[in-house]
Amino acid sequence: MENLKGAVMFAQSGGPTSVINASAAGVFIEALGQKNVTAVYGAAHGIKGILNEQFYDIGKEDPKELELLKYTPSSALGSVRYKLKDASVDDTDYKRILEVFSKYNIRYFFYNGGNDSMDTCNKISKYLAKSGYDCNVIGVPKTIDNDLYGTDHCPGYGSAAKYVATTVMEVNLDAKVYDTGMVCIIEVMGRNAGWLTAASALAGIKGLGPDLIYLPEVPFDMDKFVADVKRVCAANGNKCIAVVSEGIKFADGKYVGEFKASSTDLFGHAQLGGVCNVLASVIKEKTGIKVRGIEFSLMQRCAAHLASETDVEETFRAGREAVKAAVSGQTDKMVCYERKAGDKYEIEYKLLPLELAANTEKTVPAEWITADGTGLNEQFVKYALPLIQGDVKAPLVDGLPRFAHLKKVLVKG
Amino acid sequence: MENLKGAVMFAQSGGPTSVINASAAGVFIEALGQKNVTAVYGAAHGIKGILNEQFYDIGKEDPKELELLKYTPSSALGSVRYKLKDASVDDTDYKRILEVFSKYNIRYFFYNGGNDSMDTCNKISKYLAKSGYDCNVIGVPKTIDNDLYGTDHCPGYGSAAKYVATTVMEVNLDAKVYDTGMVCIIEVMGRNAGWLTAASALAGIKGLGPDLIYLPEVPFDMDKFVADVKRVCAANGNKCIAVVSEGIKFADGKYVGEFKASSTDLFGHAQLGGVCNVLASVIKEKTGIKVRGIEFSLMQRCAAHLASETDVEETFRAGREAVKAAVSGQTDKMVCYERKAGDKYEIEYKLLPLELAANTEKTVPAEWITADGTGLNEQFVKYALPLIQGDVKAPLVDGLPRFAHLKKVLVKG
Repeated sequence: MENLKGAVMFAQSGGPTSVINASAAGVFIEALGQKNVTAVYGAAHGIKGILNEQFYDIGKEDPKELELLKYTPSSALGSVRYKLKDASVDDTDYKRILEVFSKYNIRYFFYNGGNDSMDTCNKISKYLAKSGYDCNVIGVPKTIDNDLYGTDHCPGYGSAAKYVATTVMEVNLDAKVYDTGMVCIIEVMGRNAGWLTAASALAGIKGLGPDLIYLPEVPFDMDKFVADVKRVCAANGNKCIAVVSEGIKFADGKYVGEFKASSTDLFGHAQLGGVCNVLASVIKEKTGIKVRGIEFSLMQRCAAHLASETDVEETFRAGREAVKAAVSGQTDKMVCYERKAGDKYEIEYKLLPLELAANTEKTVPAEWITADGTGLNEQFVKYALPLIQGDVKAPLVDGLPRFAHLKKVLVKG
Repeated sequence: MENLKGAVMFAQSGGPTSVINASAAGVFIEALGQKNVTAVYGAAHGIKGILNEQFYDIGKEDPKELELLKYTPSSALGSVRYKLKDASVDDTDYKRILEVFSKYNIRYFFYNGGNDSMDTCNKISKYLAKSGYDCNVIGVPKTIDNDLYGTDHCPGYGSAAKYVATTVMEVNLDAKVYDTGMVCIIEVMGRNAGWLTAASALAGIKGLGPDLIYLPEVPFDMDKFVADVKRVCAANGNKCIAVVSEGIKFADGKYVGEFKASSTDLFGHAQLGGVCNVLASVIKEKTGIKVRGIEFSLMQRCAAHLASETDVEETFRAGREAVKAAVSGQTDKMVCYERKAGDKYEIEYKLLPLELAANTEKTVPAEWITADGTGLNEQFVKYALPLIQGDVKAPLVDGLPRFAHLKKVLVKG
């Protein structure tokens, strides 16, 4: 709906990324400059902050700190994993959201997250529309998993991909430094889609890529894995770097990370530690070669010091475009990126119905995976390389990053 | 001995660091400009390269690539862990070294490494002197462990410390993003000295430090650890960040990382994965709060993209100073840093007898550790903060680091 006058509510959800706050900065800075926007609020811990009436008055923040959000990792407002029931089953939360929105005259709502968050955003959008409450709702995508449908790529992916590619290069040099054997198994995030694991292939253009890559898109076979590692070791002085997704599954659908579920520790519960340690155990047993399992863990999604400038700037603009779209009357949409045709990398901002974004998952195309299932071809490199370009990070004070400090002034009801 | 005319041999040893090649660059660039130096060789895989007569002619390298070594992680010549026997027990290796040195007229020998490497360097130095073979021998220190005696700090420590401090800040923001509990246990390298683990305290000056720090200098008590974590959790909404050294030991001297040695996996051997996973299991069992174990693994010693400029430049100059000292007639010494008195951080390069460097280990002073044994005080911050200043890294090509490419032309006998 056009010409709505009222407040903006922005909330962050799901697992953070190193650039998620760039979208917050984009939404805040753009919204604070819009004449139809009467106030800008940021919800504490996503949808829960709305339900609990806990949100911050962004108008009270120092504009310089809002700029620094671009370079500050993790969700500055706090995140949440909270799934709304279907309104047809239980509309308690929806009624509460409507109540809070009415009380504070929220006319623009922006929800920043991945698949699940777009689902939440979609449900809220539909409920508000059905209730006859005028509020323009726009989803702002974010996920290092890069698995959202309808967008060329997702805000946050480029920076995580840059971390993975750069770190694989560095680990490659380190792990191969001795004249003795060493198998290194690196575990990368991505439960159902292998985009981030695939990013390790970018290290290959510098001659420092992994020898083997295992994506969740390809059913995992333990015997083939052992044979792959043995083959690489035989050809390379018992040295091998394998990168595996945390989400690799056997053909029967069981996660490889749960392979040793019957092994329990002293306290009777299953071992912590991911799929890389499972595979390291197997390789150690089957080859006798020294093995090291490395999890990129939280670092791959919070290493803002290694962000991609392309990603930061696109993510920031995604926030601005969301506000512009909402203010111009758009609703029930997600901001997305469309890559222009041609050799020069360029994107346009588009809007996609939330419904479509919410319920479809995008995986790595089979034709980008090499025939033996352990590598990515040129098509993937052509796709991913533009996304990791450029360097930008928080200014250093005392040799350490100066991240944003928000005052977080709670709005009084 | 002064006015020696002959070739330089340089070798790298032990676990690499992200800046170890800066010393290589310093030695090579300085040596190539010295009139008494007839050739510059780099040994493949440390002392083994000398024993096997496998070394590279550094004079054939492109000077631009030698410059890039300053920003290229891991030992570019290859490393080794090889312990020489005492010459009095078995002098086979020493005779061979003397033979190779004589054959190639090696009159300057530089060995780059940590405690063990300085021991090797010392033994070779003493043997050559005893044999009446004129060769000036200088040790160039390197270790992220920072545990070498007689030097204010060690080349490589500042960059690893910068990685640890920066990454703890980022992980802190990420791990505390939800409104639910989360205990995060981060494992840092350092088998006998807690210098690198202590560096996590630097994140505290930005308000993003760990809640608890456990060094190998303080005997570890599991009950106290659990109580510490519970206390922090109670005060902070069940959120706690603990940083532990891989080398923490119980009062009886047993490593905490071996606490679960009786737990074996499906294949009958002990679990891989470090002390952070051991402690995560315990905390999960005792508190029920969500726990994540994070190992900084190889990244903490190879993340050249996050190097300290201070460390890179000092390490480069340590290589140059080693050559200058040797050429001026010094021998049987290790280059070391002496911090000047006063508030402004500045160092001088000194020489220490190899014997002293070889057999003493420097740990974190007890008076820099807080009374409860889980933190570092201002004296540590004052010591460590100057070491992580400044930013420098390899130039980016395609958004990825352009590391040095050496031709590695083998010298023919």
